Amino acid sequence: MIDGVGGLPLPKTGLTELETARINNLDKLATKGITGMSIPVAPGVAPGSGVAHLALFGYDPFKYDVGRGAIAAYGVGLDMDDEDIAVRVNFAGFNSSGAVIDRRAGRLATEKNMELCSLLRNIKIDDIKIIIETVLDYRSVVIFKGEGLHPDLSDSDPQATGEGVFPREVKALKPRSKYTASIANTFIKEANEILQGKEARSIAELPNGQHLGILTRGYSERPRLPLMPHLYRLNSMGAIATYPDYRGIARIVGMDILYGGHDLEEEFDKLEEVFHNYDFIFFHVKGTDSAGEDGNFDEKVRILEELDKFIPRLEDLSPDVLVITGDHSTPATYKGHSWHPVPFVLVSKWCRPDSVKRFCESDCQHGSLGSFQSTEVMLYALGHAGRIDKFRA
Amino acid sequence: MIDGVGGLPLPKTGLTELETARINNLDKLATKGITGMSIPVAPGVAPGSGVAHLALFGYDPFKYDVGRGAIAAYGVGLDMDDEDIAVRVNFAGFNSSGAVIDRRAGRLATEKNMELCSLLRNIKIDDIKIIIETVLDYRSVVIFKGEGLHPDLSDSDPQATGEGVFPREVKALKPRSKYTASIANTFIKEANEILQGKEARSIAELPNGQHLGILTRGYSERPRLPLMPHLYRLNSMGAIATYPDYRGIARIVGMDILYGGHDLEEEFDKLEEVFHNYDFIFFHVKGTDSAGEDGNFDEKVRILEELDKFIPRLEDLSPDVLVITGDHSTPATYKGHSWHPVPFVLVSKWCRPDSVKRFCESDCQHGSLGSFQSTEVMLYALGHAGRIDKFRA
Repeated sequence: MIDGVGGLPLPKTGLTELETARINNLDKLATKGITGMSIPVAPGVAPGSGVAHLALFGYDPFKYDVGRGAIAAYGVGLDMDDEDIAVRVNFAGFNSSGAVIDRRAGRLATEKNMELCSLLRNIKIDDIKIIIETVLDYRSVVIFKGEGLHPDLSDSDPQATGEGVFPREVKALKPRSKYTASIANTFIKEANEILQGKEARSIAELPNGQHLGILTRGYSERPRLPLMPHLYRLNSMGAIATYPDYRGIARIVGMDILYGGHDLEEEFDKLEEVFHNYDFIFFHVKGTDSAGEDGNFDEKVRILEELDKFIPRLEDLSPDVLVITGDHSTPATYKGHSWHPVPFVLVSKWCRPDSVKRFCESDCQHGSLGSFQSTEVMLYALGHAGRIDKFRA
Repeated sequence: MIDGVGGLPLPKTGLTELETARINNLDKLATKGITGMSIPVAPGVAPGSGVAHLALFGYDPFKYDVGRGAIAAYGVGLDMDDEDIAVRVNFAGFNSSGAVIDRRAGRLATEKNMELCSLLRNIKIDDIKIIIETVLDYRSVVIFKGEGLHPDLSDSDPQATGEGVFPREVKALKPRSKYTASIANTFIKEANEILQGKEARSIAELPNGQHLGILTRGYSERPRLPLMPHLYRLNSMGAIATYPDYRGIARIVGMDILYGGHDLEEEFDKLEEVFHNYDFIFFHVKGTDSAGEDGNFDEKVRILEELDKFIPRLEDLSPDVLVITGDHSTPATYKGHSWHPVPFVLVSKWCRPDSVKRFCESDCQHGSLGSFQSTEVMLYALGHAGRIDKFRA
């Protein structure tokens, strides 16, 4: 899963990121395999990462949803009970009038995040149990445990910054969530008081007189999805991902988390170590999406070329079925998730190779699979692994 | 929207209308854009104009329907209330025994139609208010307004002609519509008496001893569709069409009617005049469909070549997204609407160009969009205009 792998051509060359990169090993897979273009959710619709992954795993994106809070919680190894509410928390920088100046608190270091989380663990509200964990950098996650909690809450995070931009009050979107809203607002108030205190300031001093505070978004309940091992009758499924949110999604759908380390080298080391213990492994590459979001065409090309060098190690493992695709496109020229279909290749001894010889947008669109919904990917994968029974007599 | 643009090859050349026409400007758009083939409704199914347009506008053709009567009424600027029933009326020619000889009354001139409608306005039935308006040529529209009216009625128009072909009695298709059927049959009887009278004969004398009468079809209630500006969050949508029925469909889905004049020149003049006042403009070209229906291959080619000359004026307006396609195919060899997929091209700075370089059936079928349902067209258009929010986190 090469996150955001699809791109758009640079006007001066007419070539996309994949078409610019020298990726002979990926091209060889395209030559051996069947190819096509995967439509993430619907024509013209750019998906978020969560829903795009769920679609690739076979979940109807219009039926199943998972909140950001739950993804973050599962991503750091927390579990949720039925009435728990999880929410994503950003440490952020505010000016003296309380406006949001920096939604990432100067890209706070993970170690400082951990120290700040320790301070926040002193907050007590009613009989609510509050679990606070660091995710990465400036991000953490909170779970509220208690009776009568419901997830229909608006975000406090305005998702914008500037002199006139203030955090919002958390509001109950349904009457049943009024009590939960009051808990959330009390938590935010107390957290902000702690973060403006002397102890917190000694941990993380922000520039230009900014003070620390939190922004919350994605209040969510325990995800209720049928689990992949059950759906697909696979005994063991594992996930390798450097980024916590993707580990979260993988845990939510029933995969084991195989810690993926910090870079491709460590991810491939892990893959080789665990490969033969698992029926299915989800392997996530994050850098392509980040480079695309940053508008950094050359960096996205560089990451693709780096990834390409690891492909022989993947082939040496001789998987029954190897699928290479992305969750959506993140063209560097577009600087964000887009709706453009995503190049797809599947290699298996049971595939019927088509005439495509390169892993890129221009060529895969002529592949034998044509353009298809990404929810079909698991069917192709399982089918080529001989894992789907004959349908009826 | 090039009505009925798709065609079939002439046996002697092996080329369709689009492949025969010299349309360099349309071909240039295909080169710059993304292409494919749009399936109007379902494989193998030839659609009517109304439903084919609704599908292009994103309405599920199996869920939404609009009757011919309502299309005609909205096309001439009439509005309908909840209990109104509208019906399309043809002036037609009958022989002395009452058989239908000419369903178009010698292609009656619009001016004569208007005079005949004035005569028909003398009809009074119960407390029913009867609104009669000329559409074009031999076609007019009637709205019945009153309490207890329902639209479940059969047509009186047998849609055939000949010695043994007689107009049918209007029948109630549901018990609730019995009263409405009696109103319709009384109206037809009284209209036919007026049209056989001296005054009507002095307006329009038919050849070979035929006498005038009316045929009715498409009894319909007020359309109940969600409106496009609301569905797609577009502030202003306009329609340019020379033909009343297409203005009717456009009004029904919430567009402003921008009177399109009588020919392409006047339509493009109007387009340039209003372009910057609208978020979205539906521009309808009728001649291709009429030529196809008439089986006139050369005329359809000629109209495509004429249209092609106007394309630079369209490009000079620099639309964010330009879509060129048709509602269905009307191959001249087939002389009618057909089920064949329709060439499609979309041009935008955010499209990922494919390898297709000509706007025609043989080439667009290799386009990156493949064959797709025409209900997806609006998603592609809105997506490439940056008008669809990211779907979930």
